[in-house]
Amino acid sequence: MSDFFERSLIVHEQLRGKIGVMGKIPISNRDDLSLAYTPGVARPCEVIAKDQSKARELTIKHNSVAVVSDGSAVLGLGNIGPHAAIPVMEGKALLFKEFANIDAWPICLDTQHVDEIVTTVKQIAPVFGGINLEDFSAPRCFEIERRLQEIGIPVFHDDQHGTAIVLLAALINAAKVLDRDLTKLKVVINGAGAAGTAIARLLRCVGHSTEVCVSVNDVVVCDSKGAIHKDRSDLAEYKQELLRYTNRKDRVGTLQEMLVGADVFIGVSKGNLLTVDDVSKMAKDSIVLAMANPIPEIMPEDAKQGGAAVVGTGRSDFPNQINNVLAFPGIFRGALDACAPAISEEMKIAAAHALADATTDPTPDRVLPDPLDRSVAPQVADAVAKAASLS
Amino acid sequence: MSDFFERSLIVHEQLRGKIGVMGKIPISNRDDLSLAYTPGVARPCEVIAKDQSKARELTIKHNSVAVVSDGSAVLGLGNIGPHAAIPVMEGKALLFKEFANIDAWPICLDTQHVDEIVTTVKQIAPVFGGINLEDFSAPRCFEIERRLQEIGIPVFHDDQHGTAIVLLAALINAAKVLDRDLTKLKVVINGAGAAGTAIARLLRCVGHSTEVCVSVNDVVVCDSKGAIHKDRSDLAEYKQELLRYTNRKDRVGTLQEMLVGADVFIGVSKGNLLTVDDVSKMAKDSIVLAMANPIPEIMPEDAKQGGAAVVGTGRSDFPNQINNVLAFPGIFRGALDACAPAISEEMKIAAAHALADATTDPTPDRVLPDPLDRSVAPQVADAVAKAASLS
Repeated sequence: MSDFFERSLIVHEQLRGKIGVMGKIPISNRDDLSLAYTPGVARPCEVIAKDQSKARELTIKHNSVAVVSDGSAVLGLGNIGPHAAIPVMEGKALLFKEFANIDAWPICLDTQHVDEIVTTVKQIAPVFGGINLEDFSAPRCFEIERRLQEIGIPVFHDDQHGTAIVLLAALINAAKVLDRDLTKLKVVINGAGAAGTAIARLLRCVGHSTEVCVSVNDVVVCDSKGAIHKDRSDLAEYKQELLRYTNRKDRVGTLQEMLVGADVFIGVSKGNLLTVDDVSKMAKDSIVLAMANPIPEIMPEDAKQGGAAVVGTGRSDFPNQINNVLAFPGIFRGALDACAPAISEEMKIAAAHALADATTDPTPDRVLPDPLDRSVAPQVADAVAKAASLS
Repeated sequence: MSDFFERSLIVHEQLRGKIGVMGKIPISNRDDLSLAYTPGVARPCEVIAKDQSKARELTIKHNSVAVVSDGSAVLGLGNIGPHAAIPVMEGKALLFKEFANIDAWPICLDTQHVDEIVTTVKQIAPVFGGINLEDFSAPRCFEIERRLQEIGIPVFHDDQHGTAIVLLAALINAAKVLDRDLTKLKVVINGAGAAGTAIARLLRCVGHSTEVCVSVNDVVVCDSKGAIHKDRSDLAEYKQELLRYTNRKDRVGTLQEMLVGADVFIGVSKGNLLTVDDVSKMAKDSIVLAMANPIPEIMPEDAKQGGAAVVGTGRSDFPNQINNVLAFPGIFRGALDACAPAISEEMKIAAAHALADATTDPTPDRVLPDPLDRSVAPQVADAVAKAASLS
């Protein structure tokens, strides 16, 4: 593994930037220069000055996304700051280009104050068609995203919603291959950070039946102190909010106690938390989606030994990799194509179902498409754009 | 001319963005994905977290420039706001790529408050190796640039210094072809905005003689009310500051009065201000650099008729085009190559001399290189990097 990481360092040293800017028009003569720059450029400027919406027709705004981070919660590395976060944001921008032909640019913020972050992102918004928030620590990420919803372009915290959407797609297909009713599954989520909270929220509404939301009803979220329930006095506001739609039976106990009889374990916490024995106490043919990286909450072979029928992780070296790259390129592609002012719950649900549908011949070992499958993002984009136009 | 502007609009409609993002590494398999993104990307992140300066060795920071504007003074269009400014900033980014292989990204700010602009630019600085300020109105541009000097990367307001540097190069060669001593020229600058102020400042020190600055000593700056002199009670602070090194003989009068006997007219004001008669009252073989765009302060044929020996404008359809593209790509290239923390006066002076030297066989009709000459930026870059390493 250390060889692998050294290889990554060498690649980064050689590239000095995984993305670059390219010109889309040659500057070979005076005419080129006069058209693309002064004096010709004055004309599109005037048109936009009269009608701001024309910026999408005349500039990169129709296809640009800012990948914004403050470096406060980068991968498993924690609060490493904006400079150390650059390689991740560049990588994300590279994936936006590769999978959805989106022009994404990394923006790493030299502040970790919520007010300043919100103000700065609003102020740099004009040139962008969307904002992908990345690696902001919880609970700050919730307030930052909420306060940015009004800016008129999609703002999407990928660690929350990207993860939740891919997870839901995996769950939809897991239920399908096991011939179970998704909405009746008993779910335990371990981890009440950005991803865990977003997953719980998305499970509130996983589809529609004659205009009414269909929910996964039995969801319990655990944090490091066990189940989040109404009698706990130590809950931050965002955890209290989870109680509006989780733990309706008001169960009290440890993660291990919650797992007894549960159908689904969703781990967005840390490695090596569960044993074979824990999984064996779950319901028959359980679904274990253990996404802690690089070490999952339980290794796939152990989960299977405990009786799990579908096992997924965040890792590429096991089946069923729950990888955000399956979602964010197509979601932004669809939102940009539809000129959506925001990414609605309907668009997220549509993305999850499109992703589930994009999985050819799902089996217990294939509940999601291959993350490298280039046909996925266009399918997700179509569904998202359609949902945007309906909402 | 309206045909030309319509053609520019069509080009902008077709391109929908004159620049784009390109990936510099293919994502063809799981190994590519793991190296460029998770989990491999964690390694360069860790290295930078330990030593922030490594960001230049491992990311795009060594080659990236933000082209920042608030849209308050765009071309001759005035305060058209951040959205309408995008085409100009994209054009600038395109020229950075074309002439100096710099990865520049447009940032258009949705605020015109100086404090907010300064804070926002500081906060987005981590991913950039330099900041090109563009089309900020005077006098706000002076304070914005001054307050950003501390951020540790070059911050350069092109409308001030880019113009001043190209102008100085033209003046150096004009003096050369006319066999005059640059420092003894009597200069009148009309326009006390961003460019006029920067030109006056740069003329304070146009070179060094045994460590001592050599100045153009006789400079008078005029604004719309005539010569800026010490008895005027209507002068803003930045105009008062000009009196520290201009109008040393404390002359009082109109622009026309100041021009009598002057060697050089530098116009950064507005079109059609001067007549043949005005120029004829200047000293013999005068130098007229009339940069108002698109209509110069006086048309070249009229200036020549009035006796001017060297005439330059901002236009590409006359000889001696004073075009910033001759300066900014090479200046940033040199500053980035030298990892300079700022662009010093010495670097600006070096750029002007390098630009003057890059003009092959100067004549009265060729005091500057062709703006499309690709050999210019590398020469300017070398001189700027050398000056950076000495300062």
